[in-house]
Amino acid sequence: MCLAEKKLEVELVEERYWEKDADFLRRNPAGKVPVLRIDDMILTESSAICEYLEEIHPTPSLMPRDPQERFEVRRLVSWFDDKFHDEVTSNLLYERVNRKIQKAGYPDSGNVKAGAKAIKYHLDYMAWLLDRRRWLAGNEMTLADFAAAAHLSSLDYISDVDWNRQPGVKDWYAKIKSRPAFRSLLADQVAGFPPPAHYADLDF
Amino acid sequence: MCLAEKKLEVELVEERYWEKDADFLRRNPAGKVPVLRIDDMILTESSAICEYLEEIHPTPSLMPRDPQERFEVRRLVSWFDDKFHDEVTSNLLYERVNRKIQKAGYPDSGNVKAGAKAIKYHLDYMAWLLDRRRWLAGNEMTLADFAAAAHLSSLDYISDVDWNRQPGVKDWYAKIKSRPAFRSLLADQVAGFPPPAHYADLDF
Repeated sequence: MCLAEKKLEVELVEERYWEKDADFLRRNPAGKVPVLRIDDMILTESSAICEYLEEIHPTPSLMPRDPQERFEVRRLVSWFDDKFHDEVTSNLLYERVNRKIQKAGYPDSGNVKAGAKAIKYHLDYMAWLLDRRRWLAGNEMTLADFAAAAHLSSLDYISDVDWNRQPGVKDWYAKIKSRPAFRSLLADQVAGFPPPAHYADLDF
Repeated sequence: MCLAEKKLEVELVEERYWEKDADFLRRNPAGKVPVLRIDDMILTESSAICEYLEEIHPTPSLMPRDPQERFEVRRLVSWFDDKFHDEVTSNLLYERVNRKIQKAGYPDSGNVKAGAKAIKYHLDYMAWLLDRRRWLAGNEMTLADFAAAAHLSSLDYISDVDWNRQPGVKDWYAKIKSRPAFRSLLADQVAGFPPPAHYADLDF
């Protein structure tokens, strides 16, 4: 999303990171995605990659100038990539999809239940923020919106987001979905898991 | 460490965050530490806090100027706060200490074993980096060194670091330990868990 928003062309390569083959681990000892290669520089850790892209390609900007506003962006990126990831994404997406792809057994129903409960609280928190601001971290669209949208779109792909719960969150996601940078991502599919009809639809 | 290095005075307050009392959750809905209060601004998420302190108090600097070097600092902060935390700190410190303080039963021996195995690989990785650079992220001391030292010192408090494994890592930690900013932290103790004699000793 960050690359597309800044109109930086990239060749997407599927990494079966869970197979931990030696070649992949050599490029990225952390053994996870995303990995971005720019010439012979190999970058890992999504938030570090996005901050780097922001510094070398500052326009269009995905970070405000003011230190307090920058703090709020970083706080929310951590919120989604850490707390939301652990409480929601790993309990729903990883149980329902990753396990099957990785041939790691059936979803753990306790985890799925915990994820389904936690996403409600997270949608409410997002609604609370969006009641006070145009975008999640302030009045401009930032990396925080992209971090949140990355998680929510992957959960929407398996119909795990109740868009009727918080109209403010639905409006925010409609704005994200309508961005040119986001359109191509919505066309991307996981083999063996066709998305529901509403997934790529701007009128969902 | 970041506050002390920049000579910013702070009043330390113990938070029993696992008790999740309403007043603490109101200040920090993520329900974790650290939380930094500056006037009526409440900051959470350690990496977001440190980046903010770096922006409003840039001297002495804990971040390089060059975007590639800044990337490497952020990659390593994530490495320690994410991967090292999950593989080592949560398996050793949280099992041996946090469980007891939180009255959450006995250490899980499988987790402790996994942590004891993982720390070896992490010390080797740090040695590999330090063989190529004076500090973890490059030739200057940065937030990456502080992130690593925060984890290692808490593990050293319970004698879970084998300092003989990698002399380069021991030398690096000796340099960190000798900094004035670090000395006062080494005097801090967890009630009911006296540290070993070598913990605060510069000659360990």
